[in-house]
Amino acid sequence: MRIDIITIFPGMFAPVLNESMVKRAQEKNKVRIKIHDLREFTKDKHNKVDDRPFGGGSGMVLSCQPIFDAVKKIKSHVTGHRSHFAKSQGRKVPGIDGAKVILLCPQGKTFNQAMAKKLSKEKHLIFICGHYEGVDERVRKLIVDEEISAGDYVLTGGELPAMVVVDAIVRLIPGVLGDKNSLNFESFEGNLLEYPQYTRPQNFRGNAVPEVLLCGDHRKIASWRKAEALKRTKTRRPDLLTAKKQRRQ
Amino acid sequence: MRIDIITIFPGMFAPVLNESMVKRAQEKNKVRIKIHDLREFTKDKHNKVDDRPFGGGSGMVLSCQPIFDAVKKIKSHVTGHRSHFAKSQGRKVPGIDGAKVILLCPQGKTFNQAMAKKLSKEKHLIFICGHYEGVDERVRKLIVDEEISAGDYVLTGGELPAMVVVDAIVRLIPGVLGDKNSLNFESFEGNLLEYPQYTRPQNFRGNAVPEVLLCGDHRKIASWRKAEALKRTKTRRPDLLTAKKQRRQ
Repeated sequence: MRIDIITIFPGMFAPVLNESMVKRAQEKNKVRIKIHDLREFTKDKHNKVDDRPFGGGSGMVLSCQPIFDAVKKIKSHVTGHRSHFAKSQGRKVPGIDGAKVILLCPQGKTFNQAMAKKLSKEKHLIFICGHYEGVDERVRKLIVDEEISAGDYVLTGGELPAMVVVDAIVRLIPGVLGDKNSLNFESFEGNLLEYPQYTRPQNFRGNAVPEVLLCGDHRKIASWRKAEALKRTKTRRPDLLTAKKQRRQ
Repeated sequence: MRIDIITIFPGMFAPVLNESMVKRAQEKNKVRIKIHDLREFTKDKHNKVDDRPFGGGSGMVLSCQPIFDAVKKIKSHVTGHRSHFAKSQGRKVPGIDGAKVILLCPQGKTFNQAMAKKLSKEKHLIFICGHYEGVDERVRKLIVDEEISAGDYVLTGGELPAMVVVDAIVRLIPGVLGDKNSLNFESFEGNLLEYPQYTRPQNFRGNAVPEVLLCGDHRKIASWRKAEALKRTKTRRPDLLTAKKQRRQ
């Protein structure tokens, strides 16, 4: 998978992308992530990427031109590579670029695990990090394929949501997590929250691990875990169970 | 406000906390943020912070001891400072530390703007970044005051959610955003998504700004914006409007 991120804070990304699982995914060539500084695409001599909103109001709105030019350059670069490769193989040059352009903004569809799974199958994603006062509406209308929100809260910009979406989808790319079982049960699988986990010591400040986890009977343990996951979900997130029921109907 | 973050990836935070609004908030002394490396609190000679789960299963679970010791040290350090200050002022030393300990994990309460507002009034927050296989249940039971999830998706760890929560709450601390109006209307205020925004040029590739925004009549513009916000919310997030109605009843 190839991921391009367009941002006015390129410096925020490196340490997040170069740690932990996303780092390993890049080392294994499962994903290639490139950060693009939006300011490099301005035609304005002061590298201005935003301007005051028509109709008044406070704050600044990200302008169309730099975003359009950034997306265009990324797409043509990739298409260029592809057409070069296709020609060298004696094949026809693909006519369209399969990249999906995603705007991170609070007005987008609320991100969830099902969306993460779907996006993890894409070949090329281009993320545009919105900023809190907004993005010119014509960006939405003319070049964005999908709008995604990390949740019902307002952040300074789309940078953190972009990192969240990248983290959630990259770990689902086959071969990224070494242990396949790691994906077998986790929160939101089957619309359940994860069961309680315990590790050593067996007794911590008078609080002991539930005995069933020490019994060695794997069937018993599995059934306890399922019951606990269900109980936790019923108490904390009954909405997840309702959603499950509705999907079945 | 004071914020402490306990993590196994301390390096991920600096560039995010030193950019943009969160950086300015620290410069204005509105917030003090400190990152703590969980590995520094292990008693194990290999600095192990996790161990295999009781009852079997893949992955590792964060152990109790390092987390407990980290929280204890942060609390006693702050209490120490306070008692020193109180004594120097001839006042009684406060008996309890008012810090709220928050675990970032998918089983937590889904974070939203109302929670951000509430948390922005706290004096001291301690965030524990969970990891995807889980945290020993006794951490939850014994020292965590509140569990927060950034959304219904699984991430490698609680680091990005911690950054999300910090960004959302710090910008709500009075005096952090220079322009008070910036907070006047934004997505999720009054359970509405934000209206469309436009900036120059007036015509971009044949797409013109709606005429009403150019008319100069502020009442007309305000009423158009309100109608557009409502329309957008009805189309994209009817659930927000239902939630609003239910709260009124």
